[in-house]
Amino acid sequence: MRAVDLIRAKRDGHALSREAIDAFVEGVTTGAWPDYQTSALLMAIVWRGLSADETAWLTDAMVRSGARIRYDGLAHRPVDKHSTGGVGDKTSLILAPLAAACGAPVPMMSGRALGHTGGTLDKLESIPGFRVDLDEAAIKRALATVGCALVGQTGAIAPADRRLYALRDVTATVESVPLITASIMSKKIAEGIGGLVLDVKAGRGAFMKTEAEARGLASALVATGARAGVRTEAIITSMDAPLGRAVGNTLEVVEAVETLKGRGPDDVTELSVRLAASLLTLAGVEPTPDAAERRVRAALASGAGLETFARIVENQGGDARVVDDYARLPQTAEAETVGAPADGYLVRLDAGLVGRAAMALGAGRDRVDVAVDHAVGALVRARPGDRLCAGDPVVELRHRAGRGLAEAVALVREAVGMGDRPPAPVPLVLGTVEAPDQQP
Amino acid sequence: MRAVDLIRAKRDGHALSREAIDAFVEGVTTGAWPDYQTSALLMAIVWRGLSADETAWLTDAMVRSGARIRYDGLAHRPVDKHSTGGVGDKTSLILAPLAAACGAPVPMMSGRALGHTGGTLDKLESIPGFRVDLDEAAIKRALATVGCALVGQTGAIAPADRRLYALRDVTATVESVPLITASIMSKKIAEGIGGLVLDVKAGRGAFMKTEAEARGLASALVATGARAGVRTEAIITSMDAPLGRAVGNTLEVVEAVETLKGRGPDDVTELSVRLAASLLTLAGVEPTPDAAERRVRAALASGAGLETFARIVENQGGDARVVDDYARLPQTAEAETVGAPADGYLVRLDAGLVGRAAMALGAGRDRVDVAVDHAVGALVRARPGDRLCAGDPVVELRHRAGRGLAEAVALVREAVGMGDRPPAPVPLVLGTVEAPDQQP
Repeated sequence: MRAVDLIRAKRDGHALSREAIDAFVEGVTTGAWPDYQTSALLMAIVWRGLSADETAWLTDAMVRSGARIRYDGLAHRPVDKHSTGGVGDKTSLILAPLAAACGAPVPMMSGRALGHTGGTLDKLESIPGFRVDLDEAAIKRALATVGCALVGQTGAIAPADRRLYALRDVTATVESVPLITASIMSKKIAEGIGGLVLDVKAGRGAFMKTEAEARGLASALVATGARAGVRTEAIITSMDAPLGRAVGNTLEVVEAVETLKGRGPDDVTELSVRLAASLLTLAGVEPTPDAAERRVRAALASGAGLETFARIVENQGGDARVVDDYARLPQTAEAETVGAPADGYLVRLDAGLVGRAAMALGAGRDRVDVAVDHAVGALVRARPGDRLCAGDPVVELRHRAGRGLAEAVALVREAVGMGDRPPAPVPLVLGTVEAPDQQP
Repeated sequence: MRAVDLIRAKRDGHALSREAIDAFVEGVTTGAWPDYQTSALLMAIVWRGLSADETAWLTDAMVRSGARIRYDGLAHRPVDKHSTGGVGDKTSLILAPLAAACGAPVPMMSGRALGHTGGTLDKLESIPGFRVDLDEAAIKRALATVGCALVGQTGAIAPADRRLYALRDVTATVESVPLITASIMSKKIAEGIGGLVLDVKAGRGAFMKTEAEARGLASALVATGARAGVRTEAIITSMDAPLGRAVGNTLEVVEAVETLKGRGPDDVTELSVRLAASLLTLAGVEPTPDAAERRVRAALASGAGLETFARIVENQGGDARVVDDYARLPQTAEAETVGAPADGYLVRLDAGLVGRAAMALGAGRDRVDVAVDHAVGALVRARPGDRLCAGDPVVELRHRAGRGLAEAVALVREAVGMGDRPPAPVPLVLGTVEAPDQQP
């Protein structure tokens, strides 16, 4: 099968056979397909889409491009959670120890994605000494001892995805539901998990701007997971305003620990509990969502989640004393506060713009080779619906010697919207998607 | 302007600015744009198209990627003809000397395209000694002496098109009206001509299968030429059955010479006269189509066209004695005839399949590095509408020691369709397209 014929078939809107997709992924993995043919096919896929079959075959071929981890001898199914990315989303740091404390094996693997703020790996690396580069044997030991590992994807996982993603990033072919689906799910399936909960974000601070788009992606993800034998469910959550109050690496670690101490913002607490409960049912630890939620809330109230967090940190070489002494985390005392421009209700705090402000300060990266400043970020002092007087603080920017501050202030000013009436409340959880034929 | 932003804009259906298109073509020409970004943009253009403005800007940028020839001191505008490619189309060899004999300067440049049969250059190279690689000075001398040069495009003409075409060929991005338009017109404009007649083919043996598609391409070509200051007109002609009776290089040269002697097939003669007459009005030699046609027919009847053909051959190093002695051309005596499968009317002789048969014998090429066998080809012995008895000859295949013969015979058998009634006659000229504001 010649590459050009395969490109032509997709260009003309035809479905590709399983063999054609296998040939493509093999060509990408070995380098036999030149990049210019790969990128032409990727653009044709952005244009014409992929069927559920094609998406599943692509995902499977990408899984087989590398190693697939196998866990044996666990009491329950290993589970993981994946978020499509939001601003202020530190729930992984909370729900993973909570679920592990309840008995679910959580080998959580994250990528080092580009984004407004650092990803989970960057947040964890705020903790002095914390290592995310565990090998397969170390991950398995972590599951056997503390029940959880929070690590980066190893180079053996889905190498075809790495090559494809690098090309998609520079050819404007990222925005495609089937390509996003295959990229996310190939990595998750190769990780060897038996259950996966997806947090698909919708809104101003998310990749998917509307609930309908988010639902489309969630459905594709869940269907693809189910076909690969991974019990998968998705919740669709609002990402119009930042989640919680902290945006930036150290700031988010502190908020996560506070949440594990029972003092977190309501939205962070509730979303973390909801996702942790899903992990318990997916793992087979609890039979029903209600029982799972009760068990997670008990682990939160008892401090078992916090204790597991500290054990994870210690197991991965980090300084667990940060749990009781936040001063051990990278900090900056320099702060600039952006106030309300007028009296009224805060009706909008655009998560996307707040995220870009944090990135301007150095909290995130737009190139893989850029280092993240763990100390800087934004603290949300007022949330949509709050009644404010002109000058009341809305966002406090923690900066390093003014680096990126002017841009960040301008972005936050743009993010703030005031009104005469409080905004209609937006529920955090907009909906759920489950595979229809999944047995508990 | 980053390449990825430009790709994204076109992917999302936005128009590109003149500056963006200039940056793209410059990036292609210098190599600053990697091929994988170029091919992604090409596929986005296949998907989203280009406006008339964008097409004209792309064409202009491709012209400026190389040299543009300037002719000075000619009594009339230099003119050329371009065909989108058909099977058995040898009209260039007839109309160019006819128009030159009537006083039009004809610096005709052809590409060495891939195709069923050789292009104009391959046909000319059937003539022993004929050289098509004249430089600019030699072309100008040819115009001053014999009034015509039949040459290949020089490397200085539109280098961006060469790079783009090589990439389009292997990324399934050839089939796009704006990309085809910019490719054809950039080369023609860079050649320095003042007038251009286009023969846009429609039908089984053509790139455009329907008259509507051909009309769309013709309109884009004419509009783009007019914007660049080249007086351009197009005729849309039927390419369901081969043009004339000869398909293959030597065979077509013989038919062209026979036509210049007044003994050519009607369709070849009429189309050549029609196109030559267009060249005379475009050049400004004659004021009206009727006057131009009378003058061309006179040059045909007097033998002036044949005489000019011989002078062109001689001027370009060829053996002009071939005009009176076809045995000096490469020949093969080996022939196999495919007959009518049943009594009845010949209702179909699929030009595309006959072309592929000729290619199977070695008359054409599907890769640039393949040599063409000038001697082989197909002779059409019966034309659609002819009443035949089973076994009457339809196509005679001239082969070289049976090379490709089995495949060619099978293709010709597939090309033949018989029926009980004669087919509805199809006019050769289906329509014309002229720029509305063109002054004579």
